[in-house]
Amino acid sequence: MKAVRLHAYNEKPTVDEVPEPTVTGPFDVVVKIGGAGVCRTDLHIILGQWDAAMSPTLPYTIGHENAGWVHEVGSAVTNVTVGDTVILHPTPTCGLCRACRAGQDMHCTESVFPGLDGTDGGMAEYLLTSARACVKLDPSTQPKDVAALADAGITAYHAVRKALPLLYPGTTAVVIGAGGLGHIGIQCLAALTAANIVVVDRNAAALELAGQLGATQTVVADGKQVDAVKDLTGGEGADVVFDFVAEEGAENEGFAMTRPGGSYYVIGYGGTLVVPTLDVISTERNIVGNIVGTYNELAELMVLAQAGRVTLHTKAYPLDAAQQALSDLDAGMVRGRAILVP
Amino acid sequence: MKAVRLHAYNEKPTVDEVPEPTVTGPFDVVVKIGGAGVCRTDLHIILGQWDAAMSPTLPYTIGHENAGWVHEVGSAVTNVTVGDTVILHPTPTCGLCRACRAGQDMHCTESVFPGLDGTDGGMAEYLLTSARACVKLDPSTQPKDVAALADAGITAYHAVRKALPLLYPGTTAVVIGAGGLGHIGIQCLAALTAANIVVVDRNAAALELAGQLGATQTVVADGKQVDAVKDLTGGEGADVVFDFVAEEGAENEGFAMTRPGGSYYVIGYGGTLVVPTLDVISTERNIVGNIVGTYNELAELMVLAQAGRVTLHTKAYPLDAAQQALSDLDAGMVRGRAILVP
Amino acid sequence: MKAVRLHAYNEKPTVDEVPEPTVTGPFDVVVKIGGAGVCRTDLHIILGQWDAAMSPTLPYTIGHENAGWVHEVGSAVTNVTVGDTVILHPTPTCGLCRACRAGQDMHCTESVFPGLDGTDGGMAEYLLTSARACVKLDPSTQPKDVAALADAGITAYHAVRKALPLLYPGTTAVVIGAGGLGHIGIQCLAALTAANIVVVDRNAAALELAGQLGATQTVVADGKQVDAVKDLTGGEGADVVFDFVAEEGAENEGFAMTRPGGSYYVIGYGGTLVVPTLDVISTERNIVGNIVGTYNELAELMVLAQAGRVTLHTKAYPLDAAQQALSDLDAGMVRGRAILVP
Amino acid sequence: MKAVRLHAYNEKPTVDEVPEPTVTGPFDVVVKIGGAGVCRTDLHIILGQWDAAMSPTLPYTIGHENAGWVHEVGSAVTNVTVGDTVILHPTPTCGLCRACRAGQDMHCTESVFPGLDGTDGGMAEYLLTSARACVKLDPSTQPKDVAALADAGITAYHAVRKALPLLYPGTTAVVIGAGGLGHIGIQCLAALTAANIVVVDRNAAALELAGQLGATQTVVADGKQVDAVKDLTGGEGADVVFDFVAEEGAENEGFAMTRPGGSYYVIGYGGTLVVPTLDVISTERNIVGNIVGTYNELAELMVLAQAGRVTLHTKAYPLDAAQQALSDLDAGMVRGRAILVP
Repeated sequence: MKAVRLHAYNEKPTVDEVPEPTVTGPFDVVVKIGGAGVCRTDLHIILGQWDAAMSPTLPYTIGHENAGWVHEVGSAVTNVTVGDTVILHPTPTCGLCRACRAGQDMHCTESVFPGLDGTDGGMAEYLLTSARACVKLDPSTQPKDVAALADAGITAYHAVRKALPLLYPGTTAVVIGAGGLGHIGIQCLAALTAANIVVVDRNAAALELAGQLGATQTVVADGKQVDAVKDLTGGEGADVVFDFVAEEGAENEGFAMTRPGGSYYVIGYGGTLVVPTLDVISTERNIVGNIVGTYNELAELMVLAQAGRVTLHTKAYPLDAAQQALSDLDAGMVRGRAILVP
Repeated sequence: MKAVRLHAYNEKPTVDEVPEPTVTGPFDVVVKIGGAGVCRTDLHIILGQWDAAMSPTLPYTIGHENAGWVHEVGSAVTNVTVGDTVILHPTPTCGLCRACRAGQDMHCTESVFPGLDGTDGGMAEYLLTSARACVKLDPSTQPKDVAALADAGITAYHAVRKALPLLYPGTTAVVIGAGGLGHIGIQCLAALTAANIVVVDRNAAALELAGQLGATQTVVADGKQVDAVKDLTGGEGADVVFDFVAEEGAENEGFAMTRPGGSYYVIGYGGTLVVPTLDVISTERNIVGNIVGTYNELAELMVLAQAGRVTLHTKAYPLDAAQQALSDLDAGMVRGRAILVP
Repeated sequence: MKAVRLHAYNEKPTVDEVPEPTVTGPFDVVVKIGGAGVCRTDLHIILGQWDAAMSPTLPYTIGHENAGWVHEVGSAVTNVTVGDTVILHPTPTCGLCRACRAGQDMHCTESVFPGLDGTDGGMAEYLLTSARACVKLDPSTQPKDVAALADAGITAYHAVRKALPLLYPGTTAVVIGAGGLGHIGIQCLAALTAANIVVVDRNAAALELAGQLGATQTVVADGKQVDAVKDLTGGEGADVVFDFVAEEGAENEGFAMTRPGGSYYVIGYGGTLVVPTLDVISTERNIVGNIVGTYNELAELMVLAQAGRVTLHTKAYPLDAAQQALSDLDAGMVRGRAILVP
Repeated sequence: MKAVRLHAYNEKPTVDEVPEPTVTGPFDVVVKIGGAGVCRTDLHIILGQWDAAMSPTLPYTIGHENAGWVHEVGSAVTNVTVGDTVILHPTPTCGLCRACRAGQDMHCTESVFPGLDGTDGGMAEYLLTSARACVKLDPSTQPKDVAALADAGITAYHAVRKALPLLYPGTTAVVIGAGGLGHIGIQCLAALTAANIVVVDRNAAALELAGQLGATQTVVADGKQVDAVKDLTGGEGADVVFDFVAEEGAENEGFAMTRPGGSYYVIGYGGTLVVPTLDVISTERNIVGNIVGTYNELAELMVLAQAGRVTLHTKAYPLDAAQQALSDLDAGMVRGRAILVP
């Protein structure tokens, strides 16, 4: 089958012919890919920026946002059968460690991360995964329409869901960055809270889309965005700031926009927080880390998606055009999310 | 009456003769001071380090850890009567703002901070406060024995109480700094959890005391304390790190000792956190600000104190010896807490 | 001034001329009534059904759902000034007990309940209340439009808000009774969750309105409603059942509609639950009591109301027509809520 | 091997010779039993009282509180190996349903209940279970010393753990019934809270033991226990009542002992709650169902057990003496817990 494989850092991945994966373990599932999201993290991977954290052995197949149809199942798989439409949680987990037993999939001590850690990912015709990663969908769902929810989606949903108790009517949530994750976050906030939603972005078109998706107010990130958020919140700052950028200064501005007693949720990455401990304690603010969500959160997000309350703008590319999709993303030419469709 | 008043930064406060305060508002309470704690924050005040944050008008009476007996009450006061033994919440609050109505005293938008913000504090024979600050105590309680719980105590208790849901059996809490606040924190952890309690301090005597107060293990802060905590926690780090120091590097070591999914609680101050956002998100760790606790938390802490589950080492000084007490504290010559007894 | 006063149980209250209330205490507020809701509880009061619980001394002025404009304030009132538009929390509280300090207004040990406990209520031209009961509104708000949110509204909102953590996407909430409280509850659920909302009522017109207000599905209470709810929930029952009726059998049906691990929220009253403890433990279900909400919850609900997300059908009557309004309510001839407008 | 099998209701189970179980599925584990608790539920089973709920096919092997050593493992088992000392969660779960993925083992939609539902239990030399049921213990642990924690223990622990946020210093927890589960509950409360612990029981010896295990006060259930609890709590009742009896009237007394805003936790069973909905709403009390705890809760309880903070009184019987053990239990002649040791 065809697969998009990374052979060396700082070189373009190539579409290679490789053997199809097959089931060997009792919980294995092979999925025929219907859509594989192309994510900014893929660009970081190619640049070698995840090498230290993940130490993958090259070459391997990238692609960590996957949906499709079940093609083959192991002997002990009971939750899906061949032909089922599925979206895949990005990190197949062990099911046995303390974190798994508490439903904290993202803290599984034995999980793998196909497409990131050297395990083959989903930019291919078939993907080997586990029963524990499969969320069964209504058969009418098109995998290419939802694939990007598998990682970008649950990451945004997870952050929003954790913050819900803080976002009662009358509070303000700031969303920094109305791009791929951010525009899902805005929709989740609009679906699950009655909070004011203030969206901050450099890009006027992104802000216009944000308004359509549920933003109450928008702020152009022109250097005066901290003051603008304070003006919109009676001088206090926002109850919760969701920072989908968290680099190039956004991270320290995001913390500065957070009101006393409030919480700054980090979702993007790249920058460095520099925060005097006096500022943390005198205002009792929190800095909250966020990573990919849980299996159940992905299932919940699919409920929102199937009800039309979270939608994605996507642009489909054939698998052979993977390099083009990556280049377009890098060049800022993709509105919404690029999806490879084998 | 006598009062310890600060006339200029970087000069020793003096014991002056000033008029006794009297009740004017309906909720006013005048308390005859039985004990006023001498706190490291008083040293910072004298050095002018709180000037920017609080902008007090000099001169004023310092002292923000106070207990005593009710001397006079305003017309609308119903919760205490003359003669009652009381400990005082450090920040009399308005009772009407959103934060007050939610029980979040420390986020009251109208509170004052006697002894810090230019309002006269408790290093005096009498203190003017509010009914809302008074926690009534058993008449057998000696104010000088508990005064230091009014600020140091509830700050430690507040941080521990917020973290309780994270500290189930089998988890590890690290306490950095077994000084005034830290040794109260250790006792609160021992009273309210079955977690492992690992205490980190430079001082061997402080660690020995920590062991008597409930520490499961102790670690000398000799530069290898991050590795030592990791060794004690299977290489992972602690579920919760309470940093009562948060300066001179402790803050970044404290974050480094925190396990994936764990939380770093900042209570001390002075240093600056420098944290890449990638480290925050890839491990989903939290940085949690902590300030003084709520009125109800002070009442709860007094339950622990009156049951003998939280005790304080104190050293009494007469009010006239305030300069000596401050000097002794600055010179590291006070074991436990210095208390002025008018 | 005119006031609607109850002189004897089982007799119609009369519109009497009584002296206007005036401010005496420092926290007193006199409000010129702009709207006073007429509630089914008023009918129960007249029948003497609250006599045992509240022991009021007759005669007194009824009316516990009040909004209007501040007319006079006590010396210590800082949160409202003369002329402010306000809605009144139904139970002025002490602000000093443990419950008040925790924000649990409804558990204040010193609160009064004007209109219920013998303290004069709001079916009058003026009402004496406390600063702690006043929620300030946008001056454009008409008191008669929101008065019924003061008690019916926050009771429904309080129950829904407590249940929010249980109502993630994919879950089902059942609302039993789409009357005065129920139709507010439906709107709160629609504003704050993405759960399925199944509404059960005997009345087809009420169900039609429910559909317009956000119900996902409606069920006629024709005796087979337990089975109908189970059919709509895969045979399991609902995650949360809000019972705004809780009499005439609804209470035991409501518990029967609750899924294993689910919660049955009691808001109405009159019936008696008869539940084998084996049924409680073998399915781990909860029965959750609900009473009027907190001050902050009333403020939050007003945010929803002012945003148009919770609306009330009301029918205005002049104060002199109080008997007519009570008769109409008793006869089932009021759509939405009857409001007395002095 | 020998196994204690129930052939007909209302007849004594017999010790039969049956084939040893063997591993067939990839997640199967065969455990050599080191201790099997004899529980009052076993008496109920023999009387046919669980027939309607569980519909077991007779004959089958009873015994649902099991610990021992791993004897054989399936191909996909990674969390234990042959020879490991283990205690077994009572309900092997699927690991794939929503409840399992949320860590709510007791609400697994596909679980079995060996010893109750017709699946062979642990009163035998060997037991077939699943990797997901195995909690690995320190090899120094004697299975017979901890077996009864597998069901009685985690049930008590689960209820206490759920209630922890309600039990801050100054609150009161009532424990009704200081028998098998109750005396574990008392120890859990003492280890994890600083609440007052009031124990109610008919039996003076049980109350004396309760005092040794951490009860602050004890009350003889002589018919005046509701008043006695109210007297001990300022007339208000307890914040949380844990009812380990919940039959013969204890259930309604338990609810009556609960303070306004408080929670009545049902753990025992047999009686019927009769509660006017007015009593539920006017005081905003909760009735909380409790069943066996989660896998992680069993692991946490074992931490307490291995630290000596929860201990069990046990009386060992050889497997052949199973009838004697059941008779002794029925006759009230077992102090603590009877354990069969094959």
